Amino acid sequence: MATNPSWLLQSYPSAMPTAENWALEERPIPEAADGELLVKTLWLSVDPYMRGRISPAKNYAAGFKLGDLMRGGGIGEVMISESPDFKPGDIVMSDHFGWQPFSVVPAASAEPVTTTDAPMQSALSYLGMPGLTAYFALLKTGRPRVGETVLISAAAGAVGQIAGQIARIKGFDPVAVAGSDEKLEWCKELGYRTGVNHRTSADLVADVATACPSGVDVFVDNTAGPIHDAAMLNLNTFGRVVVVGTIALADRFDQPDIGLRHLRRTLITRARIEGFLLDDHEREYETAIAALLSWYKQGLLQTREDVAEGIEAVPHAFVRMLKGENFGKQLVKL
Amino acid sequence: MATNPSWLLQSYPSAMPTAENWALEERPIPEAADGELLVKTLWLSVDPYMRGRISPAKNYAAGFKLGDLMRGGGIGEVMISESPDFKPGDIVMSDHFGWQPFSVVPAASAEPVTTTDAPMQSALSYLGMPGLTAYFALLKTGRPRVGETVLISAAAGAVGQIAGQIARIKGFDPVAVAGSDEKLEWCKELGYRTGVNHRTSADLVADVATACPSGVDVFVDNTAGPIHDAAMLNLNTFGRVVVVGTIALADRFDQPDIGLRHLRRTLITRARIEGFLLDDHEREYETAIAALLSWYKQGLLQTREDVAEGIEAVPHAFVRMLKGENFGKQLVKL
Repeated sequence: MATNPSWLLQSYPSAMPTAENWALEERPIPEAADGELLVKTLWLSVDPYMRGRISPAKNYAAGFKLGDLMRGGGIGEVMISESPDFKPGDIVMSDHFGWQPFSVVPAASAEPVTTTDAPMQSALSYLGMPGLTAYFALLKTGRPRVGETVLISAAAGAVGQIAGQIARIKGFDPVAVAGSDEKLEWCKELGYRTGVNHRTSADLVADVATACPSGVDVFVDNTAGPIHDAAMLNLNTFGRVVVVGTIALADRFDQPDIGLRHLRRTLITRARIEGFLLDDHEREYETAIAALLSWYKQGLLQTREDVAEGIEAVPHAFVRMLKGENFGKQLVKL
Repeated sequence: MATNPSWLLQSYPSAMPTAENWALEERPIPEAADGELLVKTLWLSVDPYMRGRISPAKNYAAGFKLGDLMRGGGIGEVMISESPDFKPGDIVMSDHFGWQPFSVVPAASAEPVTTTDAPMQSALSYLGMPGLTAYFALLKTGRPRVGETVLISAAAGAVGQIAGQIARIKGFDPVAVAGSDEKLEWCKELGYRTGVNHRTSADLVADVATACPSGVDVFVDNTAGPIHDAAMLNLNTFGRVVVVGTIALADRFDQPDIGLRHLRRTLITRARIEGFLLDDHEREYETAIAALLSWYKQGLLQTREDVAEGIEAVPHAFVRMLKGENFGKQLVKL
């Protein structure tokens, strides 16, 4: 009989999570009720937003309780369908996959994954949540004009790598902030004009100024923290800041974030700073996926994955992604 | 022969300005060159934005240098006109009046003041810069919907008193933050539903929550500081924050503003935080003034002035306005 080792949340991390915040426990293979699917997990996605769900602090979605099965994005094969929309053998994506080999997901949360145009796991990266986030955060919330400088933090990450390439395709001037010279080199291959290594920079404000000689028009902020300050202090009049993620706060989600406040600068520049959540754009997913897929098929989108293997690897893969130790979209293959 | 005692900037205040930052010096009555007007000052306006101009820190407009004549908004009578657009005896408003009894202003900066519909000095308050700021900050940048809660700081001030009344006229739900119970009482007479006294509140976050039981949809932020925090921590999903002024920082304009940062909250609420500068709306002044004047003539706009007298009083009036000791639009009558 198949086993189903499942990751349960054991403790809330007060600082950077460690693999010890979860425990791997044998669980029975769950049963699909009406409107549900039993799926065999093929890929799991670990993403920055999940840090906010393992915190007792208020978030945009309900968090996990201690003892809960961890859930997140995944791709799997339908074993049993209690929904007329899916049949056994279908490949589906859902953001309700458990961190376990066999999962039950609501059919309403599932989308079919077509594997003819791109590898299956693309639905978890450039054709899925990170790609859509890049698309809408940059184009709909940031709204750069041709030639404008777009600064992107976590530029080699799952969202950043796509945002930078869309910026290049659209004729904006993308500049990367990333955590290693190796990542920056790759960012330039993707079409970023230049970049700043925030781990080795002795003066982030000055280095962003050098990288953006005409100032920053749009900042796609995947990080918060000191990179946010450097962007704000280089922001042009009528600059736009899209707050997509706050991964620089991953080690202190439950603590007040104290630092430089930029209200004078916001007033002086008439900046627009706007929080971004992908769910708000659901009605336009189809358009965006068509655009992303078309760019991919034309060879205009490169992507990079960082793949861990096996159910045992999931918490470790999640933590290394939070620390920026991954290089490319972090996935776990089962 | 008439004398022309004029206020010159003597020193940059590093904290809250005092009258000692200026010196009153006798100056000759200036001569109007081509395109200029010699005006006899009747009213001077002291406004929060002028704090930023007596700081060596970067601002949206060039600041005063040490020894410079202070300039700001005023109303006066044209004595000598070197412009075809004005003649002696005309009453004009300009934001280039010196802090002095006789001033030369560029004719291009001057607007005729009609005194038939409202008292002359209205052009410095509800029919001028503060009224226009309230109008555009609330309606064009904040964009509340009918029934939404609009929190307004410095609610009894020159901008706040008008913003609150426009909110009431338009069917929004205005809530005041002000610095005395007397001011709050008056705010309620203006149509604010309720208010919070930020000087006596022991817990501003809780008191704003009580005053705004449905949360804050739009925040017209004239202050920054702890009131900004209380608004952010009560901001609704898709809340809008219009950064109009930062008077709570008046005592430390040249120092970094360190405090709570709200990037997680911005993301979670998908807030839009936007800096506001009146100049950006110049093409629509006429429409706005027509609306403000119409409301005034219908008896829908009450206003309150705090009038100091004589050229000697100007720095003191400016400082007491920065400290919130004024009650109503602070003016100086000459």
